[in-house]
Amino acid sequence: MMISHAAFGAEPWCLRENDLDLDVLAQSESVFALANGHIGWRGNLDEGEPHGLPGCYLNGVYESRQLPYAEIGYGYPESGQSVINVQDGKLIRALVDDEPFDTRYGVLHEHERVLDFRAGTLSRKVEWTAPTGRTVRVTSTRLVSFTQRAVAAICYEIEPIDRPARIVLQSELVANESMTIAAKDPRMGATLESPLVGRLNAADQARVVLVHETRTSALRVAAAMDHLLDCPAHADTGVESSADLGRFTVAARLQPGQRLRLVKFVAYGWSGQRSEPGLRAQVDAAVAAARHTGWDALLAEQREYLDEFWARADVELDGDPEIQQAVRFGLLHVAQAGARAERRAIPAKGLTGSGYDGHAFWDTEVFALPVLTYTLPDAAADALRWRYDILPTAQARAKELGYEGAAFPWRTIDGAECSAYWPAGTAALHINADIADAVLRYVDATDDEDFLRKEGLALLVNTARLWHSFGHFDDEERFRVDGVTGPDEYSAIADNNVYTNLMARQNLLAAADAASRFTAEAGELSVDGAEIARWRVAAEAMVVVYDDHLGVHPQAERFTDHQHWNFDTCSPAHYPLMLSFPYLDLYRKQVVKQADLVLAMYTCPDEFTAEQKARNFAYYEAITVRDSSLSACVQAVVAAEVGHLDLAKDYLGEAALMDLNDLEHNTRDGVHIASLAGAWLALVAGFGGLRHRPGKPLGFAPKLPPGITRLVFRLFFRGRLLRVEIEGDTARYSLLDGEPLELRHYEQACTVRADAPVEQQIPQGPELVAPHQPPGRAPARRK
Amino acid sequence: MMISHAAFGAEPWCLRENDLDLDVLAQSESVFALANGHIGWRGNLDEGEPHGLPGCYLNGVYESRQLPYAEIGYGYPESGQSVINVQDGKLIRALVDDEPFDTRYGVLHEHERVLDFRAGTLSRKVEWTAPTGRTVRVTSTRLVSFTQRAVAAICYEIEPIDRPARIVLQSELVANESMTIAAKDPRMGATLESPLVGRLNAADQARVVLVHETRTSALRVAAAMDHLLDCPAHADTGVESSADLGRFTVAARLQPGQRLRLVKFVAYGWSGQRSEPGLRAQVDAAVAAARHTGWDALLAEQREYLDEFWARADVELDGDPEIQQAVRFGLLHVAQAGARAERRAIPAKGLTGSGYDGHAFWDTEVFALPVLTYTLPDAAADALRWRYDILPTAQARAKELGYEGAAFPWRTIDGAECSAYWPAGTAALHINADIADAVLRYVDATDDEDFLRKEGLALLVNTARLWHSFGHFDDEERFRVDGVTGPDEYSAIADNNVYTNLMARQNLLAAADAASRFTAEAGELSVDGAEIARWRVAAEAMVVVYDDHLGVHPQAERFTDHQHWNFDTCSPAHYPLMLSFPYLDLYRKQVVKQADLVLAMYTCPDEFTAEQKARNFAYYEAITVRDSSLSACVQAVVAAEVGHLDLAKDYLGEAALMDLNDLEHNTRDGVHIASLAGAWLALVAGFGGLRHRPGKPLGFAPKLPPGITRLVFRLFFRGRLLRVEIEGDTARYSLLDGEPLELRHYEQACTVRADAPVEQQIPQGPELVAPHQPPGRAPARRK
Repeated sequence: MMISHAAFGAEPWCLRENDLDLDVLAQSESVFALANGHIGWRGNLDEGEPHGLPGCYLNGVYESRQLPYAEIGYGYPESGQSVINVQDGKLIRALVDDEPFDTRYGVLHEHERVLDFRAGTLSRKVEWTAPTGRTVRVTSTRLVSFTQRAVAAICYEIEPIDRPARIVLQSELVANESMTIAAKDPRMGATLESPLVGRLNAADQARVVLVHETRTSALRVAAAMDHLLDCPAHADTGVESSADLGRFTVAARLQPGQRLRLVKFVAYGWSGQRSEPGLRAQVDAAVAAARHTGWDALLAEQREYLDEFWARADVELDGDPEIQQAVRFGLLHVAQAGARAERRAIPAKGLTGSGYDGHAFWDTEVFALPVLTYTLPDAAADALRWRYDILPTAQARAKELGYEGAAFPWRTIDGAECSAYWPAGTAALHINADIADAVLRYVDATDDEDFLRKEGLALLVNTARLWHSFGHFDDEERFRVDGVTGPDEYSAIADNNVYTNLMARQNLLAAADAASRFTAEAGELSVDGAEIARWRVAAEAMVVVYDDHLGVHPQAERFTDHQHWNFDTCSPAHYPLMLSFPYLDLYRKQVVKQADLVLAMYTCPDEFTAEQKARNFAYYEAITVRDSSLSACVQAVVAAEVGHLDLAKDYLGEAALMDLNDLEHNTRDGVHIASLAGAWLALVAGFGGLRHRPGKPLGFAPKLPPGITRLVFRLFFRGRLLRVEIEGDTARYSLLDGEPLELRHYEQACTVRADAPVEQQIPQGPELVAPHQPPGRAPARRK
Repeated sequence: MMISHAAFGAEPWCLRENDLDLDVLAQSESVFALANGHIGWRGNLDEGEPHGLPGCYLNGVYESRQLPYAEIGYGYPESGQSVINVQDGKLIRALVDDEPFDTRYGVLHEHERVLDFRAGTLSRKVEWTAPTGRTVRVTSTRLVSFTQRAVAAICYEIEPIDRPARIVLQSELVANESMTIAAKDPRMGATLESPLVGRLNAADQARVVLVHETRTSALRVAAAMDHLLDCPAHADTGVESSADLGRFTVAARLQPGQRLRLVKFVAYGWSGQRSEPGLRAQVDAAVAAARHTGWDALLAEQREYLDEFWARADVELDGDPEIQQAVRFGLLHVAQAGARAERRAIPAKGLTGSGYDGHAFWDTEVFALPVLTYTLPDAAADALRWRYDILPTAQARAKELGYEGAAFPWRTIDGAECSAYWPAGTAALHINADIADAVLRYVDATDDEDFLRKEGLALLVNTARLWHSFGHFDDEERFRVDGVTGPDEYSAIADNNVYTNLMARQNLLAAADAASRFTAEAGELSVDGAEIARWRVAAEAMVVVYDDHLGVHPQAERFTDHQHWNFDTCSPAHYPLMLSFPYLDLYRKQVVKQADLVLAMYTCPDEFTAEQKARNFAYYEAITVRDSSLSACVQAVVAAEVGHLDLAKDYLGEAALMDLNDLEHNTRDGVHIASLAGAWLALVAGFGGLRHRPGKPLGFAPKLPPGITRLVFRLFFRGRLLRVEIEGDTARYSLLDGEPLELRHYEQACTVRADAPVEQQIPQGPELVAPHQPPGRAPARRK
């Protein structure tokens, strides 16, 4: 079921839905989800029903489950982790005379929902006539606070129109909501029945607190709510609590024009260690603070926080209002996923749904962190500090696998490997080099030497040790990395994947550089000069395969000898191919799920000549089916670099509209944070041509595709705020804040100063033959 | 727990156990199992307890179970199959005065069990004093009839010694016996709780019948028993039946020297289609026939059947009585696994245990059928007819995987793929070429043209179609077979596995030859000249990789570039490696679970020069750990060929004693039919040097290792019975029956006639440097 885009108007600073379409309700809940990286609330209707998938998520709160194997193998993870729907504090039910407010009954005159990118709120406006004939207007606004990490709040208003009505509001906190059934798609998460065991509940005045513990993972989760009531008529109120239900009830008889207003403050706290009374106190305190702040001030703080964010992060774009909207929508969701994650993971779906079981993958480092590094650098640092925190688990995993250093999990919530199919999980060792790459980028972008000295060094050293123990020197003294899975998941267990080897080389060299620089700290990690030397030798000897015959890089050794996929026999219904063909068939043929060698050309741009980039890009375009949402944005970046600007724009469109148009048909399970971040990458690294090679000046090679007449983006870099404006064949670099910055425009050095913007001409690119995609797999054309 | 070999005396025609060791009870139950290919009874004690694993198996009777996957993939089999313990008809319990006869209590004066290879019986002699002080002598003999396929029988005798005793015998038929718990070893089978649902039971005089149906797979299984009682004192008898229990009871008071004798006839019948009354009638009829035959005549028939078998199959060996015994023990078990399987599978464990869930693998065609082809050719034909019968399932599987022809299951009972881990299951496509190879061998050894015309042709054509659609021509017009798993399961998803490619080539050519010869029959399979030509082109263009630098064949493309396994860090406790190291690590390094390239040198001997064989053998010896019971026998054969005769003898010992010494520590789950058959291969193909290339005369290159002074074996070949005797440096070929036969002795042609044995000299082999094995993995030396 696809979201008909007509449902959303292309407004620059908000996403507005004018009608309630129950067929895409679950998708809209993901798109309208609010989060701050700590707490996530799906965009479920206030009254709870109808719903697609109810969801309140807390970063790091999961339930464990035994992973089943028909044939067990050594080192298979025994326990899986699934994000759970915790106590639902979003619920405000209404009874209008005798009829529950439920949009499925009666007549819905108006239903509007608006996600405001600057306010950081989801607001709703409804006019509804109950089957009994009573008409009410309901408006609500909710936020998940960026400034008060543990807090979410709702301002709910209801008023009768035309005739008086008896109104009862029930504001609830519900644990163990019944969930919908999981389908047979490996990308969906496991649905766990009643994962919460009630440990404590209490109600007093307008306040309720519930404390639960997860059944198996033994995490304690507390939720509290408090209320402010503003009612122009006499109102009776009541409060109650039981194990799985807290409720604050308001009953009043309202005249037409009389508006009942209920402000609900909700706070969450969770821990694997803190006691139940401790957690209860924590959430009671958090709601007290929120109540003390008040609704209007919470709103104001929220806007202020986002004003700062947009000052650093905003991208302006003339010529395509849909993309303009989508890229801001995406940036908001990236911020919502990471802003206050604070040493917890940034899951692939953020906190917007239970897809992929709420796990974090390499998406964090390769897609989300590049955006956060230049816009919310503290959030990028915290995401990497989370990796540092789970280093002991990753070290234990490396040891279990027989290697040195650390082997980070392919998918996890708490740091333990949760991948139950190792050829497309544990074997994707590149995640370790991806983390090292993110460390390098963050440190270079921020000059955060304290981070490098401690967390950064430990991450670089441990991942370098992994590579050194994993690869080996062959008889010709070349360093091979055999038997790994690269980014493309339609290949597995291949030798010398080019992306992996190049990233591993960078990882080894970066560790050597950092350890040479901080010898004392490196010594504490038992690094000595001999080890550093070994890393450099391995890096220098790293195998990078090339097919001389075809003049392209095979994505892994012998890849280009494999049979070409027969696209003639594939109809649109066969996609994604993994649901229609066995891995046996996919792995052995030249068919690519997602950018792999093409990603290497973006992340390691200096390792390829311009001619190689063009030939490689054309070669892989013809066999890449983009069955992963991680592909289009990367293809956009490289398409732009090699000069296929129209195509780059099409891929930008696909990345940016992934969720607004539900292109992968699984937005119901949560938005695709990587793809949304990828829209920014497509614009900034694609049309802006940003290439950040640590240790070198930032490089730009801007060029605009037909139809986009102007592009402006900002980068926060080493304490400076840089603004880049591209219009026609001119690029203008302005320093909004900070010391002079040296940069390169098409490899030409220039220095931009606060008072002196630099204007550069954009060279004309060559005329290129458009590459072709597999039949039916070209991205949708953007006019 | 290892069987101390001292427990068995090295008698040439029987296996005798002089003491009851409860620590190896489960292993002894496998070793003492009786079967005829249709019914299998483990060597459980008559009285049922103590037991290691109770087991009565019927070929083809299994229960289905959902296969669990934490991450599902397209084409993964959803349903698994497990052999089940059906109604146990072996039970005869005894009460001696007030005490149940149970060897765990009282005093056991004597306990002897004998598996008689010529009689085809398991007999037992016990003298026991109950805790009450009464002493009895119990003797029993049981058989699973080779001549009456559905029948097993027991003759049970008990007599008091010294003092009179009250004796009660309860002869039972028990369904849903409680089983022991499964451990964490993927090689064990799944234990299913109470798989049988009672459908019908009846008792009359000394006869009971039970009919059950399996819960999920819906197979109906009937079992009947009838009894003949011979009691010198007054005896009361009774009979009863309920859903899961049939019982015939005899009570008598015996004086010392009075012997009560109970003969029990048991019959089984099963079907997925036949009705309950139909099955009941079938088993009633089978017991009636057995009773009519009588115990003594059943014994006589059994011996006569085996006399014929041994006349064709016996191997005599001077100089190593343990091996002499073991090879006959092995031959008996191979006959027990296949003799009356009659268009059902020959499982890896025969019908001796529930290991590997009772599944059949490639073991059948590559290890068991070479023995049966020359000794019980009808059994070989029937095993291949079973493959023919499951061809529709294999065709459907090929289609599901996206290929043409047939893809036979890696493991199955009823023909459906049951492998839940595809890299070491479905990807092992060589099983299809193995089946084709067995067809070729059988047809050439028997001149069974009717078989070739029908079943053989269909099997060859469908497997050739699979290869043709699976492989592809690269840019240099070479035919590649990428992404398969060869015999060695410590590698997976590799390109151009040499064994696979050579066997596929033979498969393609054999299909082309057969289809060219039987054009009409081939036409019915829609084979035309163009398709035949395509097979030949693919076969001619088949890639066979070779490492020029090392001068050896990599077992698969680039294998020899991979890192060498670090054996220094492996202690004996690390074996089998798959229980101590992840597949991630094993697959990417040069460590070999079982003969792979070495197997290719045996099955495709003409594809390698003598020098290549010697170099390859030495190379793979150093990295082969033999974590599979399928390895030693193949290494024995090739070691003998290249001239390492001592080593060959050591490997022969390992193959032959696999179960008698419980070398893999899993004989409890059933004997290793392939390894037992492999002992014959080690002797006949190893020291006899038999090479059978269809279309060419049988070739021999005999040579004896030090310590084996004489070896005699027989082959039934194209209606002739050939006897080969090797003694010192002389080989003597005699035709015991049939028309003159041309053969080759060390590539020298000679013809042997019934009246004229041929004597040939054995050339002296070269002096060779002994190859080495991984540390600690050399086979045990045989003096």
